[in-house]
Amino acid sequence: MPKVIDHDERRRHIVDVTWQIILEGGMETATMREIAARAGFANGALKHYFPGKDDIIRATYDSALATMTQFVLDAVGDKRGIEAIRAHCLAALPLDDFSVSAGRVQVAFWNSALGNPDLATFFSRHMQEWRESIARYLAEGRADGEIVSDLSDDEVISRIMLLNTGANVLALLAPETSTRELQIAHLEALLSDLATAPVPAV
Amino acid sequence: MPKVIDHDERRRHIVDVTWQIILEGGMETATMREIAARAGFANGALKHYFPGKDDIIRATYDSALATMTQFVLDAVGDKRGIEAIRAHCLAALPLDDFSVSAGRVQVAFWNSALGNPDLATFFSRHMQEWRESIARYLAEGRADGEIVSDLSDDEVISRIMLLNTGANVLALLAPETSTRELQIAHLEALLSDLATAPVPAV
Repeated sequence: MPKVIDHDERRRHIVDVTWQIILEGGMETATMREIAARAGFANGALKHYFPGKDDIIRATYDSALATMTQFVLDAVGDKRGIEAIRAHCLAALPLDDFSVSAGRVQVAFWNSALGNPDLATFFSRHMQEWRESIARYLAEGRADGEIVSDLSDDEVISRIMLLNTGANVLALLAPETSTRELQIAHLEALLSDLATAPVPAV
Repeated sequence: MPKVIDHDERRRHIVDVTWQIILEGGMETATMREIAARAGFANGALKHYFPGKDDIIRATYDSALATMTQFVLDAVGDKRGIEAIRAHCLAALPLDDFSVSAGRVQVAFWNSALGNPDLATFFSRHMQEWRESIARYLAEGRADGEIVSDLSDDEVISRIMLLNTGANVLALLAPETSTRELQIAHLEALLSDLATAPVPAV
């Protein structure tokens, strides 16, 4: 029987190899030659699976975001309101060695996205999904009576996004300003603000 | 009389041109060939001023950080405490078009620093200077009796750093989560927290 080539499986393999190369050495080291060599392909054979390097980078970004999203969704499960926000953030923040080093790939993708509208759109769509999730948790928390602050959805979402994005960079480049303890302290301060009613005007 | 070549002036010119190239097209477009062409040098002449590309990038990073630091120091002037923190943050946050687009160069530098210990050390030293400035403002505000919260220096510094770092990225890639109004709202919330005494334990 002829050998059956699983095209999707090979694409996934190329994406996994590319992720690992970027993780180890940054985007600059992810050349077509290096990806082919590490994935066990002959030079030039990658083009049977991806038209060019940009397509591999895009698929790798897409895969990383999908993995991250699934990880966050699993952590949230059927939690609601403040508990859902806590679980979402704890899953997304760079709190362990793996997620700190994955931040390196994130910075490389941001840098690429700044010169690649296609990657920028991917990122923006992902951010939009996060915004919608957090807005849903906030609505649940208000309906359940546990969120009583007058902070707007936009303010809360922005604070979470800025914390997460900033921590991705600082955990790598200035780790003393973004330790595990500090990230959790900021998250708990936010959750505590959500559960605090505004002081009535005198 | 022979023409006097101002070596320092030429180095500054090369650095300015490099900054502009990175601002427009990212780090990948800042090749030695492009820098030489834009700076009006013959190909190969750059090496009279910088041994290699890494040295140009490092000098450009150094110059950008020095400019930023001076801008922040000028904004702070002789302010103390909470006013000094407000002025420092307003000067550093990406609140106008120029500083938003300068964030692009910042992301490119972070990405390079992740693979270049020399750049990473520069960044880390700069962060250390900021930490010391903010710690000084906090000490002043406590001495003056206007800062009464029990937030630690580390928590406040981290919150400012995360806001600034996150805003640098999101103002470019997800601007709706990091508008001028939202950045200022986060800053004012922090300053208000500093001026709020902890609730005594019951």
